[in-house]
Amino acid sequence: MTSAAVRKGELTRQAILEQAARMAARVGLEGLTIGVLADELQLSKSGLFAHFKSKEALQLQVLEFGIARFVERVIRPALAAPRGEKRVHALFEHWLEWPKSSGLAGCMFVAFSTELDDRTGPVRDRLVQGQKDWLDVIANAVRTGVAEGDFREDVDAEQFAHELYGIMLGGHHALRLLRSRGAVDRTRRAFARLLDDARVAEKAKG
Amino acid sequence: MTSAAVRKGELTRQAILEQAARMAARVGLEGLTIGVLADELQLSKSGLFAHFKSKEALQLQVLEFGIARFVERVIRPALAAPRGEKRVHALFEHWLEWPKSSGLAGCMFVAFSTELDDRTGPVRDRLVQGQKDWLDVIANAVRTGVAEGDFREDVDAEQFAHELYGIMLGGHHALRLLRSRGAVDRTRRAFARLLDDARVAEKAKG
Repeated sequence: MTSAAVRKGELTRQAILEQAARMAARVGLEGLTIGVLADELQLSKSGLFAHFKSKEALQLQVLEFGIARFVERVIRPALAAPRGEKRVHALFEHWLEWPKSSGLAGCMFVAFSTELDDRTGPVRDRLVQGQKDWLDVIANAVRTGVAEGDFREDVDAEQFAHELYGIMLGGHHALRLLRSRGAVDRTRRAFARLLDDARVAEKAKG
Repeated sequence: MTSAAVRKGELTRQAILEQAARMAARVGLEGLTIGVLADELQLSKSGLFAHFKSKEALQLQVLEFGIARFVERVIRPALAAPRGEKRVHALFEHWLEWPKSSGLAGCMFVAFSTELDDRTGPVRDRLVQGQKDWLDVIANAVRTGVAEGDFREDVDAEQFAHELYGIMLGGHHALRLLRSRGAVDRTRRAFARLLDDARVAEKAKG
C-alpha cells in the first residue's frame, strides 16, 4: 500500500469514528450497531465489519476516539497554562467548553457512564480507566497549585478532583436536562467556592 | 366491583410498576416495552396493554411510581426532622440511602436524566418537573435554616440546592461507575464543606 492509500484509509476510519461517536452520544453504546451505523453512513455493512470486526471492537474504538479528542481539545490546551491555580482554572474552562468543542453534540462520557455503570467488560473498563486518568490530571494540576503556593498545603488534591467532577455533572444536569438558564453561572460559582476553599488566605499570604 | 377487587387490582398494578421501575432503572425507559415487560413478568401482553394502553403511558406511570416512592422514602421522613440545618442534613442522609431504600437497584432518575436529556415529550417534562420540585424542597429546607439562624442571611438557597445535586451526582458516579471505595466518604466531605460555607460562623454567632 502506498502511504497515500494508508492516509486515505486512516481518514476514512477517522470520519467513520466521528460519526459513530456522534451517534453513540445520542443513542448510547448499545444502540451503536454496525448495521445501524452502516445505514446512517450509507456504507456497506460488510465493509464496516471489515473495518471493525465486532460491535465491541467498534465501541472500544469509539471510546478511544472520544478520549483522544478530549486530550486534544481539553487537556492539552489547558496544560499549556502556567502551573498552579491558573492551570486548574484552564482545565475547568476547557472542560466547560467540551460539549461544544468535542463536535459530538453533548458529552459522550456522561451518557456512557450511566449506560455502563452496572455492566462489566472491556468497554466499561476502558471508560473507567479514562475517567480515573482524567481525575489524576486534575489532582496533579491541584498539586502544582500547592507547590506554587496558590493552594493550602493541606488541600486534598483527590478530594478536589472528585468535587470538581460533581460540579461538572451538576452543571451538565442543570443545562441539558433542566435547561436552566443559570446553569453555567451556577457551575462557575460552585467552582469559585471550591477554589476559594483551597486557596491560601490572602491575609495568611501577606 | 367490590372494594376487595379494587384493592387486588391496585396491588397488582403496584407490583407490576415496581417490576417495571426496576427494569427501567437497568435497561432505560426506551428499553421498557410492554412486550419485554410481559415476558419478564410472565403475564400476557394483551393483559398488560389493557392496564397501560401504550408504551408512553407505561413510562409515565413508572416515573410517577418512582417519584411517589422518593417522596415516601426520602422526603417525608426527612421533613419530620426539626427545621433548619438538621432538616437539610436529614434530606442529605435519606438521599444517600435512596439507591438502597428505593428497592429498585440504583437510581432511576440518574439513568432517565441521561437518557431523556436530548428528547422532548411528556415523559421528559414529567421528569424535569419532578427534579425541579425536589430542588425546591431542598432550597426550602435551606431557607428554614436561614430563618432558624443556622445559616447566613445571604445564603443563596437555589445555589445550595444546585450544588448539593452536583455533590450527589459526583458521589453516584464515583460509587457506581468508578466503584471507588471512598465514594461515600468523599460525598460526605463535599456536603460538609457546603454546609460549612452556609453556616453562621461560630465566632460571629457568639
